[in-house]
Amino acid sequence: MSHAGRPSFNETNSAEMVAQRLLKAKAGPLPRFLATVVDHLHQIVRETRPTAADWRQAIAFLTEIGHASDDKRQEWVLLSDLLGVSALVEDINFRRPNGATPNTGRGPFYRADAPRLPLGADISLDGVGTPLTVSGRVIDLDGMPISGATVETWQANAQGFYENQQPDLQPEFNLRGVFTTDKDGRFHYRTVKPAGYGVPNDGPVGQMLGRLNYPLDRPAHLHFLIRADNFETLTTQVFDRGDPRLDEDALFGVKPELVGDFKRLSGGAGWSLDFSFVMAMARKGSRAA
Amino acid sequence: MSHAGRPSFNETNSAEMVAQRLLKAKAGPLPRFLATVVDHLHQIVRETRPTAADWRQAIAFLTEIGHASDDKRQEWVLLSDLLGVSALVEDINFRRPNGATPNTGRGPFYRADAPRLPLGADISLDGVGTPLTVSGRVIDLDGMPISGATVETWQANAQGFYENQQPDLQPEFNLRGVFTTDKDGRFHYRTVKPAGYGVPNDGPVGQMLGRLNYPLDRPAHLHFLIRADNFETLTTQVFDRGDPRLDEDALFGVKPELVGDFKRLSGGAGWSLDFSFVMAMARKGSRAA
Repeated sequence: MSHAGRPSFNETNSAEMVAQRLLKAKAGPLPRFLATVVDHLHQIVRETRPTAADWRQAIAFLTEIGHASDDKRQEWVLLSDLLGVSALVEDINFRRPNGATPNTGRGPFYRADAPRLPLGADISLDGVGTPLTVSGRVIDLDGMPISGATVETWQANAQGFYENQQPDLQPEFNLRGVFTTDKDGRFHYRTVKPAGYGVPNDGPVGQMLGRLNYPLDRPAHLHFLIRADNFETLTTQVFDRGDPRLDEDALFGVKPELVGDFKRLSGGAGWSLDFSFVMAMARKGSRAA
Repeated sequence: MSHAGRPSFNETNSAEMVAQRLLKAKAGPLPRFLATVVDHLHQIVRETRPTAADWRQAIAFLTEIGHASDDKRQEWVLLSDLLGVSALVEDINFRRPNGATPNTGRGPFYRADAPRLPLGADISLDGVGTPLTVSGRVIDLDGMPISGATVETWQANAQGFYENQQPDLQPEFNLRGVFTTDKDGRFHYRTVKPAGYGVPNDGPVGQMLGRLNYPLDRPAHLHFLIRADNFETLTTQVFDRGDPRLDEDALFGVKPELVGDFKRLSGGAGWSLDFSFVMAMARKGSRAA
């Protein structure tokens, strides 16, 4: 017991003492959020028992992550992504009814200004890569077609780079396009088969996890952002079942419902993919993706 | 179940999936430490259910902490201190046998090059403040005096600033000195009564916690670093029982055994403090503070 008859700070009550200060001071979601963070931070310390030197090293690493982050690069987001936290936040917030296509992260390469194109257009502006024909349907939970849905797509090229990563090497808007579904809820376009790619590994996060042989690659995938009146906006990705890294997506985006069958066309004419997107009705007060 | 018959990432198994990647990749303490961190990070998300916007805000805050940190200022250490994590790491690593004076943080204002002084010297080089005479004893767990122990002390001035915070306002080495205990394990010196002070509140951590009315002040205290052959080095602080903030030390350093009675001397001659430090024998393989 302390001078004032209260127990003093120790390993058993430390998180509670901090929480009391947080919750005594002010009501609201931030103090409660911080109290939960503190509870788990103290648990981490109790469970891992870092030395003072270990803790200094952890602090130095956290500092480095911030120093590696700027307007163009967000190393904290990368850490959150690679440790599955971003995917978990996504899961919690965009949970869909059974049967609806799951949401998954939009990623950093989206552009809102991609061109609107007629069905059947070729979005590969440089023609580099193996041809791929994508066709799909946008339907509701009862299997009814959703006509007039806006289907935005974007993808990496055959080397695994998005056009905005290579402004000098790829034409602007290469491998991007916005389509509208027809009266049967169908859309189709031509493109090239995308390659998977590694996440940035030259910063403190990639360096540390790379040294641990932690998976830093993404399997090949196509991005879709699909909007339709009265439906929840769907941001998702379709993965290539043939990619050997399918089970080790660095960003934990692969779900069984998001794996597509890329089929080889006869006569060396490239590949095709057909995929159906199932949209959930917008709920009152629901969040758009 | 996934394409490969394995369960896919979801709210229930997310932390375990990340941990599997960590532990599969490489053995060693770092993957195990990270797996524990991930487990708690995912628990935080599940318990607090942040929106995507909340999570972006958290990421922005973490980034800001790094950006506020440089060679002179460590905002991450401040956060660790204010959330009680530093004190907990200290507690775990420098646990002393019953009866020994507890260790507590050294803080950022220590200098290893303070002058050695004869017993009775005055460490207040500018004479600003209310005089304080400090006397003390260094003893072992059996109450036997430890002669020849080195007693380093440093403290804030009567306005709550250390000399290395105010190089233009205070003489160098003001309120610092190194003494040696006499044959009875005793030491004494003259100084001025220190004031408490607030931790930096102009960075993102102080700003956020300040808005929550979280305690950011330290009660008045004296720092000691005591070394003696065959004993564990003791880094500690002695707090002024008369300070009204004693129960709300921003850094959770106050323990009942570290509270001293500052006594007012008759005739306006200032104050006195007498304090005994109990040192534990060095153990094989024990860490110095």
